[in-house]
Amino acid sequence: MSLPHPGPGEPIDVRPLGPRLGAAASTALFRTDDVEVMRLVLPKGKSVPEHHVEGEMTLQCLEGTVDVQTGDQAQRLSAGEMLYLYGHTPYSLSALEDASLLMTMLRKGENSKDDD
Amino acid sequence: MSLPHPGPGEPIDVRPLGPRLGAAASTALFRTDDVEVMRLVLPKGKSVPEHHVEGEMTLQCLEGTVDVQTGDQAQRLSAGEMLYLYGHTPYSLSALEDASLLMTMLRKGENSKDDD
Repeated sequence: MSLPHPGPGEPIDVRPLGPRLGAAASTALFRTDDVEVMRLVLPKGKSVPEHHVEGEMTLQCLEGTVDVQTGDQAQRLSAGEMLYLYGHTPYSLSALEDASLLMTMLRKGENSKDDD
Repeated sequence: MSLPHPGPGEPIDVRPLGPRLGAAASTALFRTDDVEVMRLVLPKGKSVPEHHVEGEMTLQCLEGTVDVQTGDQAQRLSAGEMLYLYGHTPYSLSALEDASLLMTMLRKGENSKDDD
């Protein structure tokens, strides 16, 4: 992800990609010491296998529909819905329709050092 | 704000309010030790005077249009645009159209104690 990232106060486009979704890739939108925000693109039928991140996160469905599995709990997220997960929560995603999601991940102190 | 807050993994509706916007109030969506998320409702012509918060924040315009002033910099945010601000950044808002915004505020250790 070598695109220049927006600075604080600069508008970032998080509208649905619509017809451009099929050719789009997941994109890091910005990262600071404390938070990392990306747009995850997940085509219909694709999955993100179970994993977890250190910090809390929010997942906001910008378009399409995804199933979010956390342990034995499954939730369906459609465009305009969000949820949050505590840090270290194992979760997986699968797209029922072409989807894009806004992921906001809180970076813990140990991550800030590990990732750079 | 005495409504029961959603738990982790529970879908939260952040779609535009549309015709319900005029009668809506700002709402705390959820709060954990690390993050607080609210929907700010700002009718056309209304402002939020300059202030700052301790932690970093993101502001995402869900509907309408707002001007975001930070120091001598002004940015216009329309539906589907977001920006981030570092902690302690003074900012003010004014609505050019009836608007609602998703505010995600990182809570610092000192806030977690002060606010409760």
